[in-house]
Amino acid sequence: MNNMLIAQSGGPTVAINASLSGAIKRAMKHTEIDGIFGARNGIEGVLEENFVDFRRLFHDEDDFVRLKATPAMVLGSCRRRLAEKPDETYEKILNIFRKYQIKYFFYIGGNDSMDTVMKLSAYFEEIGEDIKVVGIPKTIDNDLAVTDHTPGFGSAARYIATTIAEIAADSDIYSAPSITVVEIMGRNAGWLTAAASLARRDGCSAPHIILLPEVPFDEEAFLRKVAEEHKKHHHLIIAASEGIKTPDGKYISASSAPWDSFGHTMLSGVGNKLKDLISQHFPVKMRAIELNVLQRAAGHLKSETDIHESSRIGAEAVSMAVAGKTGIMMTFNRLSNHPYIIKFDYVDIKEVANVEKKIPLEWISDMDITEELTEYLYPLILNTKSRQGGIPSFFTIKEEDCFKW
Amino acid sequence: MNNMLIAQSGGPTVAINASLSGAIKRAMKHTEIDGIFGARNGIEGVLEENFVDFRRLFHDEDDFVRLKATPAMVLGSCRRRLAEKPDETYEKILNIFRKYQIKYFFYIGGNDSMDTVMKLSAYFEEIGEDIKVVGIPKTIDNDLAVTDHTPGFGSAARYIATTIAEIAADSDIYSAPSITVVEIMGRNAGWLTAAASLARRDGCSAPHIILLPEVPFDEEAFLRKVAEEHKKHHHLIIAASEGIKTPDGKYISASSAPWDSFGHTMLSGVGNKLKDLISQHFPVKMRAIELNVLQRAAGHLKSETDIHESSRIGAEAVSMAVAGKTGIMMTFNRLSNHPYIIKFDYVDIKEVANVEKKIPLEWISDMDITEELTEYLYPLILNTKSRQGGIPSFFTIKEEDCFKW
Repeated sequence: MNNMLIAQSGGPTVAINASLSGAIKRAMKHTEIDGIFGARNGIEGVLEENFVDFRRLFHDEDDFVRLKATPAMVLGSCRRRLAEKPDETYEKILNIFRKYQIKYFFYIGGNDSMDTVMKLSAYFEEIGEDIKVVGIPKTIDNDLAVTDHTPGFGSAARYIATTIAEIAADSDIYSAPSITVVEIMGRNAGWLTAAASLARRDGCSAPHIILLPEVPFDEEAFLRKVAEEHKKHHHLIIAASEGIKTPDGKYISASSAPWDSFGHTMLSGVGNKLKDLISQHFPVKMRAIELNVLQRAAGHLKSETDIHESSRIGAEAVSMAVAGKTGIMMTFNRLSNHPYIIKFDYVDIKEVANVEKKIPLEWISDMDITEELTEYLYPLILNTKSRQGGIPSFFTIKEEDCFKW
Repeated sequence: MNNMLIAQSGGPTVAINASLSGAIKRAMKHTEIDGIFGARNGIEGVLEENFVDFRRLFHDEDDFVRLKATPAMVLGSCRRRLAEKPDETYEKILNIFRKYQIKYFFYIGGNDSMDTVMKLSAYFEEIGEDIKVVGIPKTIDNDLAVTDHTPGFGSAARYIATTIAEIAADSDIYSAPSITVVEIMGRNAGWLTAAASLARRDGCSAPHIILLPEVPFDEEAFLRKVAEEHKKHHHLIIAASEGIKTPDGKYISASSAPWDSFGHTMLSGVGNKLKDLISQHFPVKMRAIELNVLQRAAGHLKSETDIHESSRIGAEAVSMAVAGKTGIMMTFNRLSNHPYIIKFDYVDIKEVANVEKKIPLEWISDMDITEELTEYLYPLILNTKSRQGGIPSFFTIKEEDCFKW
């Protein structure tokens, strides 16, 4: 028997079940694969032998469609890193894989999950065990190296751009001026915060300031910029990454922050910190809005392009493993922007595990982003076929539309 | 010349521009109406003679479609109450109406705006001025009297139900237990919080506890309920109204709360207060999520039924005024639930102004709602034609789907 096992790990995205769906569907077409199993809660579920049988669970095309449309991860997740050197946990995994005759193992995840792919694939190769291990990328943070972008990012970007446009419409209704700070996820890479810029189009100029973790936060320069932009924009919208840091590298939100189980500082409250700072200098109505877990869970605003690509990359991963590849992560390779063309590719896992891809500094300019970055982001939120429909266009009334007798 | 003037007031909803769109379109069909003007920022814009001419601004059907799809209020809003007795402001409004030959005035708004409709219509009648004043209801809070429900509520309800389902999917992914408190708008009426219950369907049992402002918050009973429900639900979701109060009538969130310009206490932080309380008794992962302004601004999740009805009620208001009615608010009258049938009607403005409609106590049961309330809510979030599609259905894996060799 040549069985495959697939699992999910890390934080949720809207697209991770699409990759699962694509992988299962492709596996059903490969005669080389017998059992198609899923492990619940990532490596934890492997160690507990907590499995599901997708051949039994899937009955018709409807199941694939519904799985593709389900946010978060249907198999559940975990946050567990393997030890640096093979230990009894590696051995236990090996024995379980042998017991269940697993020949192909797929791990859908972000940076930390690719670390697991790297360690397990190296271990199996070292001991001469023929088990192929392939990583399928996913993260709303878009911070995986080599790949043009990551599954899950486009949907989160579409959510952020759409809600920024809606928040701007909401803030525009009163005649009194206002400043709104919108706090967006992203620890060290500002891709999600940069996606706020996609809100700009007919009738929406927000966000007016974009604060990214790639650039040290300079309080004086920031307050100058607020004064300058607020003169132009009565209702100022600031998109701020949760991960912005002072010039000496401290998270501006982290005073007494706890740590998550991977040792990352837990961040929140940048919005309120900036709100307090601005309030001291500008006597206007202030709001701080934290775009909460819906950034990663809002399936209702998924990007069709993202879901389509995520499903395809899951499928391609299965074919790669069957073709004998191991110790790789699947990637997107952007061939062109007009028209938008993506090639599915792969990379040695050692090139991506534990590497964080940040926004290149040349794509950032004076608390805003450049046209190149917008060009990069825009195709990722569109409908697959029409290549349109990323965010809605609003009806607006301009000053010159008004009259008085 | 018989001109009409329309304005918007109070907080935004996703449907208020649909009512504007419906009113303008209907007005264009009434030969009794010459100029179709809008005032920016409600009564403030009237006093400043800050007007737009919709006959000039609207070119084709596309403009109506786009306006209907635009959240918040395109004319802008204000929060201004007229004095109890006619004063110089009333007189100023009268003179401006005479100058612009306004014969029909429409005010789209909530409770406070209906107060303005009542006062202005009474004033015009008293001095024998032939100006018809008609109120078009809107509020996400659904707290206007007499009308079955309010324009804007169905869309907010759909947003809340959908996001609760997505938050539940997000919280389900880890094996460690968790408790999530979701804070929902609604000062004194719990309709929006009750709408969280619509998330319950195939694969989603959340929310497991619903805290409404209609029922005094009993700390001990609440903690007992949390213990009880958490035994059944590993990942507990609590939907809490921002307006829940202690038995002696104090908002549990209001310690040093400021006041808004209508004298209402500004609320926020119920989520964090409950999170702190629960943390003292349950050593599990806790989250507090505040559903922010998107509750009232998320046009991308509007309810088709809501938009359709909101547009129609705006249109009917115009016809009522042309037929000679004044001092009224338009209403929905629900004739039946299966099939869902609404009749457009109206009510004397004195019956609704400054009256708050709360959830009847017989529709509330032990920190949850009854089947009757769900039956009431459900039709309001559906697609107009299919009467389906309120919130998406998710793929789920159950315990009995798992295996071990």
